[in-house]
Amino acid sequence: MKIADIGEQGLLEKLQRFCPSEIVGDDAAVLETVPNTSLVVTTDVLIDGVHFSDRTTSAEDAGWRAAAANLSDLAAMGASPVGITVGLGLRGDVSVTWVEDLYRGLTQCLQTHNTPIVGGDIVRSPVISIAITAFGRVRKSQTIYRNRARVGDAIVVTGIHGAASAGLELLLDPQKGENLTESERAALIEAHQRPQPRLDVLPILWDILNSQDSEFASARVAGMDSSDGLADAIFQICRASNVGAVIERNRIILHPAMKKLLGKAAQIESALYGGEDFQLVLCLPKEPAVKLVQILDTNAAIIGTITADSTVLLTDETGEFKEKLLSLKQSFQHF
Amino acid sequence: MKIADIGEQGLLEKLQRFCPSEIVGDDAAVLETVPNTSLVVTTDVLIDGVHFSDRTTSAEDAGWRAAAANLSDLAAMGASPVGITVGLGLRGDVSVTWVEDLYRGLTQCLQTHNTPIVGGDIVRSPVISIAITAFGRVRKSQTIYRNRARVGDAIVVTGIHGAASAGLELLLDPQKGENLTESERAALIEAHQRPQPRLDVLPILWDILNSQDSEFASARVAGMDSSDGLADAIFQICRASNVGAVIERNRIILHPAMKKLLGKAAQIESALYGGEDFQLVLCLPKEPAVKLVQILDTNAAIIGTITADSTVLLTDETGEFKEKLLSLKQSFQHF
Repeated sequence: MKIADIGEQGLLEKLQRFCPSEIVGDDAAVLETVPNTSLVVTTDVLIDGVHFSDRTTSAEDAGWRAAAANLSDLAAMGASPVGITVGLGLRGDVSVTWVEDLYRGLTQCLQTHNTPIVGGDIVRSPVISIAITAFGRVRKSQTIYRNRARVGDAIVVTGIHGAASAGLELLLDPQKGENLTESERAALIEAHQRPQPRLDVLPILWDILNSQDSEFASARVAGMDSSDGLADAIFQICRASNVGAVIERNRIILHPAMKKLLGKAAQIESALYGGEDFQLVLCLPKEPAVKLVQILDTNAAIIGTITADSTVLLTDETGEFKEKLLSLKQSFQHF
Repeated sequence: MKIADIGEQGLLEKLQRFCPSEIVGDDAAVLETVPNTSLVVTTDVLIDGVHFSDRTTSAEDAGWRAAAANLSDLAAMGASPVGITVGLGLRGDVSVTWVEDLYRGLTQCLQTHNTPIVGGDIVRSPVISIAITAFGRVRKSQTIYRNRARVGDAIVVTGIHGAASAGLELLLDPQKGENLTESERAALIEAHQRPQPRLDVLPILWDILNSQDSEFASARVAGMDSSDGLADAIFQICRASNVGAVIERNRIILHPAMKKLLGKAAQIESALYGGEDFQLVLCLPKEPAVKLVQILDTNAAIIGTITADSTVLLTDETGEFKEKLLSLKQSFQHF
């Protein structure tokens, strides 16, 4: 059954069950606000053939990834999600099942974080496009900005980098994974198809920093997510904060299966520039940083230090690789 | 100069001047909230060749219309705009000027209503797409829902219907306007290219309904905007409120130039089904309705009454046309 067969009204009726009926249905959604919080807003557009493709991404996975990317942007600001809107451009010959699967993937990810779809628009388009806007709320004192990093801060990553891009590679060229076990292959592919926005880090972070008897009370955090790559996140934070960084390559945690896929140098390139791991990159004083990494899972790590330089230096404490200045040129560019 | 020539960063730098620098630049925008107000969210997607086209719409006009449509949805909920996000899908061969013109049109409309662009996303796409999400705030007691119309309510329209679709017709087929004066032609085309969201109606409405010494204090209002056509708005309100309506065709205000373009029956069809006039359709008790129409400009009118039926009846007090039941079938469908 194609969308053109059931029309806009028919499609909307099918999608209604993914949205809370008390919110959706008017010209706009009305949502409660909470005193002493700010509204946080982020938006992402995904295009068929550019950001997802039938070859590597089912409709359900495309939905999950779209939701995860936006929730990750909220997490990067320290915000809790409140809701998302979904703007879809669809060809008339797209199957109704495809759209339902997309919504199923969206809501699977959103439900983990108690986040409703509160509105949307569905229009005819020669190319499938998915525009998500997510909004959240954050206490003013807990807002995480990029421009708050200070010299001496520890640079924390909340998990593995490089796995998502390795997963995509395996989907595009399955032969590359012939040395992997089935569970290794599945883990890397899941990192690509089902990334987890790190909203779980926030209560742990604020528990460390803001608990009344905390020795770190009112410590400042700078940060962003690593959606465009770990190197990009470090550069953006450094640029906004007018500082530099030293990153120790052996501290960047890779997925164990990466060793079977890539040489040592290529593994680090993939971790730095692969993108879409959706981890948080946080800069904060060393003591709370150590505590944060202890409480988070074993893949969290302090990977470096903020410096007074204007460069990002990659070091190797084993001496195997020469020190080198990182460059943003390898990062993902949309055009 | 094409977008592909200057890349994503180059384009973002050019567009930065349309956005307040203190808000844009992090993973998400942070906006103040106001106590005792609800957050109102609406989203629209526009596709090149479907919703706008070089043939009828300059980039500047496309921007204006996109902003106006979303602000109109906020007005329809009784909400004041707080900000919008803009998600753009662009081909690499689109000129930088086109994108700047689009943003110029967006901000021209937004500035009239003190509304900033607070975020966005720009991605590569084989088809130009514009996804706007608008945020507003509304006092809980002043939220306008569709489902609050009651039997006996007067149905108010805040202005002319049919002019926007006539303007589009003139752009598609200029010969149709050969009997029009230059100013008539310009007025109809402007109705299409530069629609005005009726945010100006709200303070007048609440002044009548909520002023302390008002005889109408706490009167209820139902309503929506007429973006998908006047008939569609009446149907949606009736359906949500579980009521019917009688509309008197001679009370629907048309642009004077319409008489030179269309026969009498076709004029009303155009007013009912043309769409994109972005007026408000409000249902409220008769006395405050009369007062509202008096204060609004001369094109506002009471066009009918809410009834206990489940139908929308079009009457003619002159007796020239037979009564007829309206149908939604003629309304705009996206697929």
